[in-house]
Amino acid sequence: MTSLHFNSVDFKNFDKNFRVHLINSLGGFKSVVMVATKNPNGIENIGIFSSLVHIGANPPLIGLIFRPSPPIRDTFKNIIETSYYTINHIHKDILLKAHQCSAKYDENVSEFKEVGLTPNYLNDFSAPFVKESHIKIGLKFIEKIDILSNRTILIIGEIQEVYLPENALQKDGFIDLEQAKTLTCSGLDSYHETQKINRLSYAKPDKTLIFID
Amino acid sequence: MTSLHFNSVDFKNFDKNFRVHLINSLGGFKSVVMVATKNPNGIENIGIFSSLVHIGANPPLIGLIFRPSPPIRDTFKNIIETSYYTINHIHKDILLKAHQCSAKYDENVSEFKEVGLTPNYLNDFSAPFVKESHIKIGLKFIEKIDILSNRTILIIGEIQEVYLPENALQKDGFIDLEQAKTLTCSGLDSYHETQKINRLSYAKPDKTLIFID
Repeated sequence: MTSLHFNSVDFKNFDKNFRVHLINSLGGFKSVVMVATKNPNGIENIGIFSSLVHIGANPPLIGLIFRPSPPIRDTFKNIIETSYYTINHIHKDILLKAHQCSAKYDENVSEFKEVGLTPNYLNDFSAPFVKESHIKIGLKFIEKIDILSNRTILIIGEIQEVYLPENALQKDGFIDLEQAKTLTCSGLDSYHETQKINRLSYAKPDKTLIFID
Repeated sequence: MTSLHFNSVDFKNFDKNFRVHLINSLGGFKSVVMVATKNPNGIENIGIFSSLVHIGANPPLIGLIFRPSPPIRDTFKNIIETSYYTINHIHKDILLKAHQCSAKYDENVSEFKEVGLTPNYLNDFSAPFVKESHIKIGLKFIEKIDILSNRTILIIGEIQEVYLPENALQKDGFIDLEQAKTLTCSGLDSYHETQKINRLSYAKPDKTLIFID
């Protein structure tokens, strides 16, 4: 396998779009989800995000990276103003609609309607879930962190509500995301299904790993 | 599809391991990589991480979440003390060795040797790469951010060096991670191969999406 080598000088000299695709692909496969919010005037917003990161299990926390403002980011603004938002997984049947969420619509239209997805209000949670998603998570904003290196922002939310297909939940709490048909993405625009290799046992020195399942 | 519903009260009442598996699975598929470092005494360290997040393309930045210290986290300590580290992708042939990197070894042994991987020093970069990895990234530490919600830490690094298989790089800069045989993970211990559905065109209002490739 012939290997290519690039360094900092190359990164600076690359065409902007080439650099954006390269660096966005480089970190590996990513979670890809729709984040839904409602502004104080009741207008619903939905965006697609691949910059999600697990922060902790107790309390249950998820982080999302937002690009710098201005321009105004509707999802970010709604989270700060209302404190509530939802994270919704993507499966193949809704992939085109989910990707269309990345288009920049006027802030006064319901993006659910524009892309053809259905807002779903569940158990008095104030932000809309995406009805078509198989895994839905309701979060409450708890921390905003400014990243000085490039003016991006990390928003941390605490998980309040979870909806998932019964057949995807295993006895030990592990969610079989393939049962839920959750997709993954790479780069800016590539979507993938997955095939499980195996779950592996907890690793300890001098202990042989075994396959779980 | 029967749906289950859990809320904040359930999360608190769950058995600890059940909660850890559930919350770690909930965010979707994740990047999974080996992070390699060398301490000031020359002892090499390698760990497996699934808490990677893209921070920006220009400058090219990647973030990693670290759990709270104490206990001392060797990878974290080495990054702070030496400023340099590498991120190395995982493919199926080295999966067991990569997962074994999560075992807690004594800080005075080379974890490369313990798990059976090969340190690889390239172009005067001071931290070791993993020779067996198909995609290798050399980074320089630039920002440490304390997350107050749960005392985790976000470390931001700037990409200095990249090695990748020539046949994985597409004309527009997109890296075909399936060509490079990169895996993804879910939860704490489940590993997956991927199958590309499609790349999709840049989304705009009132424009129909098309498949790229």
